[in-house]
Amino acid sequence: MTFNIPPVSTVMDDLIRRRIDSRTKPPGALGELEALAFTLARVLGTPPFQATPPEIRAPRLLIMAGDHGVAEFGVSIAPQAVTRQMVSNFLAGGASVNAFARQADLPVTVVDWGMRTALDDERIIDARLGAGTAAFHQGPAMDRNCVEAGFEHARSLIGRLHHEGTNLIALGEMGIGNTSSASALMAALTGHPVAACVGRGTGVNDIQLARKKALITQALRRHREALFDPIDTLAALGGFELVGLVGAILAGAEAGMAVVIDGFMVSVAAMYACAIAPEAREYLIFSHQSEERGHALALDWLAARPLLSLGLRIGEGSGAALALPMLRSALAFYNEMASFDDAGVTV
Amino acid sequence: MTFNIPPVSTVMDDLIRRRIDSRTKPPGALGELEALAFTLARVLGTPPFQATPPEIRAPRLLIMAGDHGVAEFGVSIAPQAVTRQMVSNFLAGGASVNAFARQADLPVTVVDWGMRTALDDERIIDARLGAGTAAFHQGPAMDRNCVEAGFEHARSLIGRLHHEGTNLIALGEMGIGNTSSASALMAALTGHPVAACVGRGTGVNDIQLARKKALITQALRRHREALFDPIDTLAALGGFELVGLVGAILAGAEAGMAVVIDGFMVSVAAMYACAIAPEAREYLIFSHQSEERGHALALDWLAARPLLSLGLRIGEGSGAALALPMLRSALAFYNEMASFDDAGVTV
Repeated sequence: MTFNIPPVSTVMDDLIRRRIDSRTKPPGALGELEALAFTLARVLGTPPFQATPPEIRAPRLLIMAGDHGVAEFGVSIAPQAVTRQMVSNFLAGGASVNAFARQADLPVTVVDWGMRTALDDERIIDARLGAGTAAFHQGPAMDRNCVEAGFEHARSLIGRLHHEGTNLIALGEMGIGNTSSASALMAALTGHPVAACVGRGTGVNDIQLARKKALITQALRRHREALFDPIDTLAALGGFELVGLVGAILAGAEAGMAVVIDGFMVSVAAMYACAIAPEAREYLIFSHQSEERGHALALDWLAARPLLSLGLRIGEGSGAALALPMLRSALAFYNEMASFDDAGVTV
Repeated sequence: MTFNIPPVSTVMDDLIRRRIDSRTKPPGALGELEALAFTLARVLGTPPFQATPPEIRAPRLLIMAGDHGVAEFGVSIAPQAVTRQMVSNFLAGGASVNAFARQADLPVTVVDWGMRTALDDERIIDARLGAGTAAFHQGPAMDRNCVEAGFEHARSLIGRLHHEGTNLIALGEMGIGNTSSASALMAALTGHPVAACVGRGTGVNDIQLARKKALITQALRRHREALFDPIDTLAALGGFELVGLVGAILAGAEAGMAVVIDGFMVSVAAMYACAIAPEAREYLIFSHQSEERGHALALDWLAARPLLSLGLRIGEGSGAALALPMLRSALAFYNEMASFDDAGVTV
């Protein structure tokens, strides 16, 4: 399947720039927030003349969950069962992402893309592609059809949100072992050495870290003939929730939504989305730079400047939820600040 | 006058640390937010056993306004009249700080510490110490009694807020020419060369920048015999609103409040507060690092790690207001997150 992502309209660029520059502040004085307001006004504004102020409507945080065959091979601090336990924690509202999302008035939805065992709870959206991926150093994590099916699920999920009036999604993930998958995907796409793409995830020790690098190197060798195409690469090295993330980014951009990127996993998904359809890039907002080793390089590949840098290493969408108030503040200055003329301030 | 600042209680430190570490996240995974939650729980918590969760109550943003004699000598992009015009803009709700403060549900109060001309508006708190300072390169900006009087005003103002239940203040400022005063104060206290303490403020050109450095150097020479004591230094080089900021920081700490520091001016005021009473340091939260040249060195002097770094160069308290949602998120994770036991998550 193909996503038809319209390039972001540049018709309003001059108008937006003029509006930002005429607010009662020295030119450029709001730094990164001016760039953020510009992006949000472009994506969320109403062309051609912005009759209504751009605003964030019915934002949703989607946490994509899935399990990873490679997690059985000692690359993580937590057993695979923790994926499901943490999903229960999300539903109960007890995780860090919940605390931050409540503060940001951001409803959280969990999507199961393939945990080892499904959780019987009607609040979870079922987009299951399997019961955990195969271990990628022994064979492909999934087949190509699986990626395509995941993209279809993502498009229908985003279509539903779009229909409900959502114009901004924030993305998070949960999947024990998924930094291994994301690191392998990153190395395959960028050509950076494995060691530069692999970090300690939520805190593995030196032995686990060495094992992680060894298995990823092995996987990259095994699948070397499959790594010429982003979809084939996703199938060989990916995770179900990573496919869900790539699909949601592409479908979100296709629907004209702003898409808020979280930490390392979601950033790697963003790289794949942009490799598949570069037009997606302009819909993305990068919430934070995490402590995970490969994240700075991933952001660099995306030419992204993250809003926050707080040393987080948690995933879940925590950083995306934390950043949402800043997005609202950027739109607030854009929509609400007086101009020099209005305020009678001498330029 | 003397401020009696109690050292922050460390009785609860173990309890607070244990609570943070037992939440459902890898240890340390929330990075800087864990340090922030620790500081807030220490300052805002109820000793000895934290029966009630620490929370931000009735927060207030105080914008300290004042005018500067040196502003008449070509060190700023804007004429002195803009101080008063921007204060009107604050009252009308049209400035960037207003937009951010509304998003953060943070009431804004303007305090006049000595604008050239007072503004007749009952919403402004009158703490006037004069009608603008004298130009500091020609003589002392004010006399020592003036600093003492400012501290008294600050204590009574903070006392009133404390009485109303406020346990957190955020500080901002407005005063054309005040980066010149703050840079001079910084150079006097730290011994850093003038060039390292002086920046472009809201955007002066190379000529104005050279003049700014020359006048500050001249002022430091002229007052060299007065620069052994922070109060005398404030009198020689300070601004009325800078005296108000130092006083508010000291009085806030004395009252056990958390004090949110904004950009360069407020950070220099924090340096003086800590030079006068080092116990004040533990009550301070540093919201952001601005683009102003001296700010990084000022934060370093204070051993402060700012939460945000967005390239702002605006003052007003804009950065402090922007950061408030993050403070609330830090307390939200501290108060609301499940423990591993509660959530049944395998450690």
